[in-house]
Amino acid sequence: MSETSYRIDALQYANWSEKIFRQMRDGKVDAVHVTISYHENFRETIANIEQWNGHFERYPDLIFQGKTGDDVRLARETNRTAIFYGFQNPSPMEDDIRLIEILHTLGVRFMQLTYNNQSLLATGCYEKNDTGITRMGKEVIEEMNRVGLVVDMSHSAERSTLEAMELSSRPIVITHANPAFWEPALRNKSDSVLKALAQSKGMLGFSLYPHHLKGKGDCTLRSFCEMIAAAADMMGIDHIGLGSDLCQDQPDSVVEWMRVGRWTKKIDYGEGSAKHAGFPPMPAWFNDNRDFGNIEQGLIDVGFKPEDTAKIMGNNWLRFFDENFGTL
Amino acid sequence: MSETSYRIDALQYANWSEKIFRQMRDGKVDAVHVTISYHENFRETIANIEQWNGHFERYPDLIFQGKTGDDVRLARETNRTAIFYGFQNPSPMEDDIRLIEILHTLGVRFMQLTYNNQSLLATGCYEKNDTGITRMGKEVIEEMNRVGLVVDMSHSAERSTLEAMELSSRPIVITHANPAFWEPALRNKSDSVLKALAQSKGMLGFSLYPHHLKGKGDCTLRSFCEMIAAAADMMGIDHIGLGSDLCQDQPDSVVEWMRVGRWTKKIDYGEGSAKHAGFPPMPAWFNDNRDFGNIEQGLIDVGFKPEDTAKIMGNNWLRFFDENFGTL
Repeated sequence: MSETSYRIDALQYANWSEKIFRQMRDGKVDAVHVTISYHENFRETIANIEQWNGHFERYPDLIFQGKTGDDVRLARETNRTAIFYGFQNPSPMEDDIRLIEILHTLGVRFMQLTYNNQSLLATGCYEKNDTGITRMGKEVIEEMNRVGLVVDMSHSAERSTLEAMELSSRPIVITHANPAFWEPALRNKSDSVLKALAQSKGMLGFSLYPHHLKGKGDCTLRSFCEMIAAAADMMGIDHIGLGSDLCQDQPDSVVEWMRVGRWTKKIDYGEGSAKHAGFPPMPAWFNDNRDFGNIEQGLIDVGFKPEDTAKIMGNNWLRFFDENFGTL
Repeated sequence: MSETSYRIDALQYANWSEKIFRQMRDGKVDAVHVTISYHENFRETIANIEQWNGHFERYPDLIFQGKTGDDVRLARETNRTAIFYGFQNPSPMEDDIRLIEILHTLGVRFMQLTYNNQSLLATGCYEKNDTGITRMGKEVIEEMNRVGLVVDMSHSAERSTLEAMELSSRPIVITHANPAFWEPALRNKSDSVLKALAQSKGMLGFSLYPHHLKGKGDCTLRSFCEMIAAAADMMGIDHIGLGSDLCQDQPDSVVEWMRVGRWTKKIDYGEGSAKHAGFPPMPAWFNDNRDFGNIEQGLIDVGFKPEDTAKIMGNNWLRFFDENFGTL
């Protein structure tokens, strides 16, 4: 008898609706880490949690709030999807280190130390100068370690990312990015980051966001899965999973909020451009939560064994959840 | 072998310190419902919770946050005091019904619908006209019932209190007040309120606040315990406990915040007066948490059997906690 194979997506940010929750079920997705705040402050983040509480009240047969690894198992047993909260930016904790414990108590499990720009804590990947983890950043990492809120460096600059691994007493993650050796996007990660991440028992979630893919929306499933095989050769099989960055049904105004927040009055196009300001088209083989089966098949087709395929599809993330969401 | 006898105080609001936490241990107090907000709004209440998290981090051998009845048992087993959060006013939920679930997730277990004045939800005991539970009040009671946040009507007016019992699908409480038949203070409760409370399986916590006592600070232990015996005759033995209203080591500025908040620019003396604006002296037999043994002895001395004494000292509250802090 083989071990259960879980399906976990370590990042989505959709215009949530019953349709999408049903697609999660159709795609047999046991757990999703959802972004609940980009640039929101604490009170705005509470409003976002309130909105999720409304979803949980309204669709109890489809979704519930996940707080521990066991909730992923419960999701599987009850044919639902466990929703785990995260932030792409430390803005919800404002300048108040004690909000970390408050937010963890409310179920937040991942927080990026930066989103593209310099934050109070670290440097983002779009800054010219990367000064590493700040004084407050060190304190925040220690507090996140204590309560079990996972440090996510997906949008951080290289030095900051490496320093975060060094400083953190618990493994950190890059929930959604790909290796730069495959596609040299600014958001994709260098060999040294990937190797250090694996060595420190962290996790990388492979992204399906077109700007992170070789050939963008034209990227083939085969190329994507071969990239995963190459990453597994470099990082080992235990430190990789999926983090699709699926951003479904969002109007352009939300894409603008993601990129611009309140930090500029001008338009910033992020990984897009003035010509292609909106959300880029997804690859044909991954449009929404129903398509995780395609990736699973793609992994098998490039030669992954069933056990290793299961690790990539969710079992590695589940082990990580088990070990890192609790108080020290 | 007799059943364990727990000691639970259903209301205190002190200037918290290591000294007081040690006095709780000296007094063998297993659990205390502490007021964490009087007139604070949501964000200010979060700051108060942060302060408590600081206490829990600093004094883990003395106190921890209680969320369920089992935490009272854990407190006894580990020789600590479980601290349960409550509000004397609905101000922390502002005008936002979904904050109720957020606050319950953060561990809040009691909320008064009013503090002396009219609120968005009900009428306070110092208002001239009592219009009962408001439209929003009805919605809020339903939501509090759903999540397991207990309705406390200690500072509410009579009609509002009776309507709350009627509307609430779960029992409500008066955490800190005495029968008006003993001492006709405005804050003490009529026979009809007490009888309806017992009939609806609610709980009354007897107050040691001098303005609620016959003879104020000169009240004798015997008189206090005879009052409890008379209340037990009226209400039955299962719906009474203690709610000392102990307000220890607070400067007068805090007493003023309790009474005045931000609702007036003038001074309001609450149950005091211009001549006696500060906090009145406590009775000699109850100065702080170390004195619960005096009350226990006083109850035995007026003829309560050991089992009934245990019910009053905490076992009734524990049963109530077990039944009313969970989601429906």
